[in-house]
Amino acid sequence: MAALDDKALDLIFREARTRNGWADTPVADDEIKAIYDLFKFGPTAVNSTPARIVWVKSEAAKKRLEPHLSPGNKAKSMKAPVVAIVGYDLHFAEQLPKLFPHAPGAKDWFPPGPTTETSAFRNGTLQGAYLIIAARALGLDAGPMSGFDNAGVDAEFFAGTTIRSNFIVALGHGTEENLYPRSPRLDFDEANTIL
Amino acid sequence: MAALDDKALDLIFREARTRNGWADTPVADDEIKAIYDLFKFGPTAVNSTPARIVWVKSEAAKKRLEPHLSPGNKAKSMKAPVVAIVGYDLHFAEQLPKLFPHAPGAKDWFPPGPTTETSAFRNGTLQGAYLIIAARALGLDAGPMSGFDNAGVDAEFFAGTTIRSNFIVALGHGTEENLYPRSPRLDFDEANTIL
Repeated sequence: MAALDDKALDLIFREARTRNGWADTPVADDEIKAIYDLFKFGPTAVNSTPARIVWVKSEAAKKRLEPHLSPGNKAKSMKAPVVAIVGYDLHFAEQLPKLFPHAPGAKDWFPPGPTTETSAFRNGTLQGAYLIIAARALGLDAGPMSGFDNAGVDAEFFAGTTIRSNFIVALGHGTEENLYPRSPRLDFDEANTIL
Repeated sequence: MAALDDKALDLIFREARTRNGWADTPVADDEIKAIYDLFKFGPTAVNSTPARIVWVKSEAAKKRLEPHLSPGNKAKSMKAPVVAIVGYDLHFAEQLPKLFPHAPGAKDWFPPGPTTETSAFRNGTLQGAYLIIAARALGLDAGPMSGFDNAGVDAEFFAGTTIRSNFIVALGHGTEENLYPRSPRLDFDEANTIL
């Protein structure tokens, strides 16, 4: 295949929208695994793949998440079939002997500290974007959100670990509820320079 | 369209590879604009779209970039038809009256400071991932890299602006040169929890 056709480009980019309303149709665990089996292939530095995902699906887990969401994100997140908490592991380097086997010393390239934390955040964020696109590619809708208390979510879901929350993504089959017209984007020349 | 077919999923995720070798086939400015016209639609918080891209294409521009690359990234980057410097604007909020018109006060949600800088970095990184997937979707290969001196690139390409470099992406038609076997990924249970 040389390139995606127009309908495929519409599905993952041009007509895909951040959803605020959700149909009751559930998201099966096999769909969650299929999302992972796609997004895991997205490129990261040194194949570090630092993202760690908690898929909040049960009512009990949603109730643990709810208090930490900003007011505008509570109701729609509780209605979503699943909300993925996209985290990243500050100690991702411990997995490098498995993930980057041709460079046995790679683990030592990432000593604890701000540079390694920035790398974990950058690459974990890339993986969060791959997750959004993978979900869309599989026919689901996504509703990413930054409006929540990261420290509260960390204490509730990642206590005692080296994982930190980044952003969250509601997933399911979106409805037209509270779907605003698509907002403008910057013109090419406002965001790009060709040298 | 309900979902992408297997060949499409292979193109953007499963068989796509980070390339280290590049054919001489150039990348046209229209292809660069087509990449932007896709990735600009990827979701960001408050539609902030803070990514600012310098597409390094001419020999003169490549020579400005070369000294700032880590040794292992120099030769392959000079051979690539174009190298995108993915930056992010710390003052992205100034564009919010255009980008988020239904909330006239949105600009004030992002005062200068660390929280706003984190938001710029997170959302600019998401856009960098969308750029990679958009390039693949249009039939190009991508070679993202973090191995360069960010401060040096900022001084060379973003002096006097509020834009900071994040990572770079070589783009073109990849070859098999120095293409390693695909490295392992974490098993589902190593990176995911369903609650």
